[in-house]
Amino acid sequence: MAARVVTGIERADAAVIEGLGAAGVATVHEAQGRTGLLASHVRPIYPGARIAGSAVTISSPPGDNWMVHVAIEQLKDGDVLVLAPTSPCGDGYFGDLLATSAMARGCRGLVIDAGVRDVRDLTEMGFPVWSKAVSAQGTVKATLGSVNVPVVCAGASIMPGDVIVADDDGVCVVPRAEAAAVLEKARAREANEEAKRQRLRAGELGLDIYDMRGRLEAMGLRYE
Amino acid sequence: MAARVVTGIERADAAVIEGLGAAGVATVHEAQGRTGLLASHVRPIYPGARIAGSAVTISSPPGDNWMVHVAIEQLKDGDVLVLAPTSPCGDGYFGDLLATSAMARGCRGLVIDAGVRDVRDLTEMGFPVWSKAVSAQGTVKATLGSVNVPVVCAGASIMPGDVIVADDDGVCVVPRAEAAAVLEKARAREANEEAKRQRLRAGELGLDIYDMRGRLEAMGLRYE
Amino acid sequence: MAARVVTGIERADAAVIEGLGAAGVATVHEAQGRTGLLASHVRPIYPGARIAGSAVTISSPPGDNWMVHVAIEQLKDGDVLVLAPTSPCGDGYFGDLLATSAMARGCRGLVIDAGVRDVRDLTEMGFPVWSKAVSAQGTVKATLGSVNVPVVCAGASIMPGDVIVADDDGVCVVPRAEAAAVLEKARAREANEEAKRQRLRAGELGLDIYDMRGRLEAMGLRYE
Amino acid sequence: MAARVVTGIERADAAVIEGLGAAGVATVHEAQGRTGLLASHVRPIYPGARIAGSAVTISSPPGDNWMVHVAIEQLKDGDVLVLAPTSPCGDGYFGDLLATSAMARGCRGLVIDAGVRDVRDLTEMGFPVWSKAVSAQGTVKATLGSVNVPVVCAGASIMPGDVIVADDDGVCVVPRAEAAAVLEKARAREANEEAKRQRLRAGELGLDIYDMRGRLEAMGLRYE
Amino acid sequence: MAARVVTGIERADAAVIEGLGAAGVATVHEAQGRTGLLASHVRPIYPGARIAGSAVTISSPPGDNWMVHVAIEQLKDGDVLVLAPTSPCGDGYFGDLLATSAMARGCRGLVIDAGVRDVRDLTEMGFPVWSKAVSAQGTVKATLGSVNVPVVCAGASIMPGDVIVADDDGVCVVPRAEAAAVLEKARAREANEEAKRQRLRAGELGLDIYDMRGRLEAMGLRYE
Amino acid sequence: MAARVVTGIERADAAVIEGLGAAGVATVHEAQGRTGLLASHVRPIYPGARIAGSAVTISSPPGDNWMVHVAIEQLKDGDVLVLAPTSPCGDGYFGDLLATSAMARGCRGLVIDAGVRDVRDLTEMGFPVWSKAVSAQGTVKATLGSVNVPVVCAGASIMPGDVIVADDDGVCVVPRAEAAAVLEKARAREANEEAKRQRLRAGELGLDIYDMRGRLEAMGLRYE
Repeated sequence: MAARVVTGIERADAAVIEGLGAAGVATVHEAQGRTGLLASHVRPIYPGARIAGSAVTISSPPGDNWMVHVAIEQLKDGDVLVLAPTSPCGDGYFGDLLATSAMARGCRGLVIDAGVRDVRDLTEMGFPVWSKAVSAQGTVKATLGSVNVPVVCAGASIMPGDVIVADDDGVCVVPRAEAAAVLEKARAREANEEAKRQRLRAGELGLDIYDMRGRLEAMGLRYE
Repeated sequence: MAARVVTGIERADAAVIEGLGAAGVATVHEAQGRTGLLASHVRPIYPGARIAGSAVTISSPPGDNWMVHVAIEQLKDGDVLVLAPTSPCGDGYFGDLLATSAMARGCRGLVIDAGVRDVRDLTEMGFPVWSKAVSAQGTVKATLGSVNVPVVCAGASIMPGDVIVADDDGVCVVPRAEAAAVLEKARAREANEEAKRQRLRAGELGLDIYDMRGRLEAMGLRYE
Repeated sequence: MAARVVTGIERADAAVIEGLGAAGVATVHEAQGRTGLLASHVRPIYPGARIAGSAVTISSPPGDNWMVHVAIEQLKDGDVLVLAPTSPCGDGYFGDLLATSAMARGCRGLVIDAGVRDVRDLTEMGFPVWSKAVSAQGTVKATLGSVNVPVVCAGASIMPGDVIVADDDGVCVVPRAEAAAVLEKARAREANEEAKRQRLRAGELGLDIYDMRGRLEAMGLRYE
Repeated sequence: MAARVVTGIERADAAVIEGLGAAGVATVHEAQGRTGLLASHVRPIYPGARIAGSAVTISSPPGDNWMVHVAIEQLKDGDVLVLAPTSPCGDGYFGDLLATSAMARGCRGLVIDAGVRDVRDLTEMGFPVWSKAVSAQGTVKATLGSVNVPVVCAGASIMPGDVIVADDDGVCVVPRAEAAAVLEKARAREANEEAKRQRLRAGELGLDIYDMRGRLEAMGLRYE
Repeated sequence: MAARVVTGIERADAAVIEGLGAAGVATVHEAQGRTGLLASHVRPIYPGARIAGSAVTISSPPGDNWMVHVAIEQLKDGDVLVLAPTSPCGDGYFGDLLATSAMARGCRGLVIDAGVRDVRDLTEMGFPVWSKAVSAQGTVKATLGSVNVPVVCAGASIMPGDVIVADDDGVCVVPRAEAAAVLEKARAREANEEAKRQRLRAGELGLDIYDMRGRLEAMGLRYE
Repeated sequence: MAARVVTGIERADAAVIEGLGAAGVATVHEAQGRTGLLASHVRPIYPGARIAGSAVTISSPPGDNWMVHVAIEQLKDGDVLVLAPTSPCGDGYFGDLLATSAMARGCRGLVIDAGVRDVRDLTEMGFPVWSKAVSAQGTVKATLGSVNVPVVCAGASIMPGDVIVADDDGVCVVPRAEAAAVLEKARAREANEEAKRQRLRAGELGLDIYDMRGRLEAMGLRYE
């Protein structure tokens, strides 16, 4: 595959991105029909971070972080780096120096199906990372990869410019063209959920709120 | 297997349950002869929670959380939900709405050999969960399972009404009929440990406190 | 293999050890040519701990922690316990009583390719542990192992008296004879990094600072 | 837990056991309501073996195979050894000498949620094993366990005397008291399947044989 | 996501498909720039099978094989079924009855990032499967999925009609539009390799054939 | 770490190596005190191979097989290649071309804590490999490693020239200097085992042959 960098990618509307970030991963995932979730082995390096941004994607060889430098030049304010190695790898592709550089360009965080290091520094800097591993294992700069090409990251297909939503529940991707529609559904879902939350808090049962008893009985559930 | 809900299960004495919770997982596990521990992949979603309660068990198909709604109706104050999928699954069966409902019925927490979501909300609500994964992956409500039947959860055999003890070390189950006897042994163990802790803190060696030197030498340990 | 305890091991210079601890795992790993890192499944039980010390090694059978008692007698102020089971095991070899004893002898922490328990107590005591698992699973005292022999722990070869450096990024081992030279390189690396950090923070790109553009083009990277 | 050996366990009817073995794992698992399957990491050491027999269970400490010797004395013709370690372990508990001894007593095979060795010899001897790992790692004889007590093996609850069915698909357990009823259902299922197999082979579609089209359409499946 | 079945998908040229199958996975993977490989946990259920065919894709909920029946109707002679669950699952979605039905429609095999059962029967029938697991665990027919939509299967992005190549080395996907070009490169590669094979067999070294000595020395490789 | 190739390594006596190979992995592992076993995830690509030879070691970056070419020049008749990546990697470092080259130099096989490809060809050529994975994933030739340096491979410490023994049970390493002594112990063990095998086959119990009943009773084993 030719090594290439796609410049000038399109991004979703900034207000839509903010809205998706506020809705959070679980709601966005449901709003788009239970799709787009990255595998659950990708976990935040510290709790409490919640971001949304446009994906700048990196396809990198195992143990080689050269393309991260190339990708940083492509970052615009509000972007999120997404790195998928071309074969499984847990090495520490990214640390405090790269985070300093990415933050200087407005980057909101990193999603990586590999390892990250300097996590104490990254935590202090407030640069959130969702990764497969924490590992100090160093990488080389010897082989080319690509930037802003379609990638499969932790089992999810991601196009450059797609919206990445990440929080304590993990990471979800929303295709750029569907971002506005998904946001609308997410907001409807949130409104609906708030009403149910009140009733559940008051002690009503989901069995009654969702009218499940008849169907359970019809399917054969037996009380003893 | 017929889908069924067993109502009116028996529970252990409330004071015994409190006592086991205060003793904690490691002590209780030792007190009952090093049995009852769930596999160590079941981890708390936030540190510091310590609970004990009576198990309301759920056997659910993979990716289907319908039976959680059914189980919540069976909860009494002080109970703990225990969910075992019928085949390995990491989906997010449980989130903030279900936790709101469970808390309204006095539930102390959830132990699940699968995934959980909305962990930021659950942490703020103070609803502890011990799970195999954090995952926003949504589930369906299409297939029956059972409530309050015997389950194997994370490698441990659990009967409805058994006492669940959970803390930062993991989760342990105590058979209901043995709860009082195990508590007694746990307290004896704690008393014994406190005396040893004082001596160890003062610099005495376990080799001497436990009188191990002779046996080590007899078995052939050689100092060089 | 004969069970044996090697006494009177040699240790690195205390000031060198302190220096390596201050440099941290990622820097030390790079300074010694990207070697010495333990596998990334060995993780700290709580965030923020940073230690360095001399390895007192333990080779133990699976599920048997007898040799920990033997090893504690060999500890000197500033040492770190390193336990490698002779076959893969996740049991809880170590808890608050052993930590109390080890701390009384000046031990700075434990690195273990197995499990640990009483993590709430260990956290309160400030005794850091890097482990493969948290597990309350109890162990026996029935079979001999060895203390202060060469071990392979989490994929890294460790000799007694080697310098262990551990922080939020994981654990790295520095051969005792190379400790001073590695520290020198680590300091040079840190000085170099600080200058780059300033430039990156100001918005300069790594592509320019490291003069990568020509080589990337020569290797065929294409911008679209 | 007291170490104990239960003698004189009851077994299912020999003809029923033979029948379940002939039906095979997949059919038996379905016939008893999709229960009883051991986790799929338990795999045969060679292809083609198909057995059924009465479980003689072993609960053993990690890395200690002493109880296997004790269990062999309890074997009767047609039995199957089932070993569950008390914590996860992959060591080689069993090899050609133990197999020779077990075969001399009529044992049909071994199911073990741990490791096995001498697999070339076992294959030549025709002694089938379903195990988690192949490993030459030796074990000790230092700590007691129990024989013919209830165990959880690879996630399945097994009582001594239950019927073990094992083939290339894995391992399934049938509770002794239900063995005859399960066999009846298994045979009904086989008869039913044969008729369907003929129709499918002739090119009929499952969609039509099982009359699925209406329900799929009602649930919203859309053809494009 | 709406459940849907895309009919009338396009397929690659039959002769090209045959050619890719003859070249095999490793050669095809290299010929298309080291892309397209499925994760190595997808393994053949028996050795020696070598196939190529057009992908008929299935996106299925965990533990639900209803869509396999729907997909079989879409098969044409020479196709390969590709099943990706919507969340990780190891259940046995497919067995001898479905294989009988698929074979009756000309299907060449199944690639599934989940489990398969009846492997003895499938082996005898000569119906090859590449799967994540062998498991008899039964599935339900309760929830819709989709057929002939884009899927990510074992980390690889697959479109309906893409060419699937599978052999003892695993599984590789070739985008339909690139199939002819990849075949051409694969053949060139094979021709080139045969010449090298002769020289290597005669004892020439790769160091000399590929003229590596100079570059190795320039990069600093030192002989001692 | 400087990239280097150590030439002219010493090897064990050829007759000793043959003897160890004939004894096999399980016996050799026991004969040297239950040490030297590689992790059980390293498995043969086909059953039945049994080899022993002198280790020519390779330390390679992840996804880079350049050093294999360098190592092949160092092979002498009867050697075994041992490859340990510097960080975890499952890529296919080795295939039929490299095997052709290695066989031309008398190499007996490959042990690799990573992936291998062309396994059908390797099987036909009779070139045995013990690997962590089968994967067609291609590697690059861009970064140096070392040949004939000490490595940790699958958890075992291996020096160049050590004796590698490999069969269906896995892989074991014997330090060169201890090879003759280990062989002697292995033969003693085999002789001892044969006598026991006869008695066990005749129906005697290990409980009696090894005189275990008294010790079991003394430790508290209870028959019910």
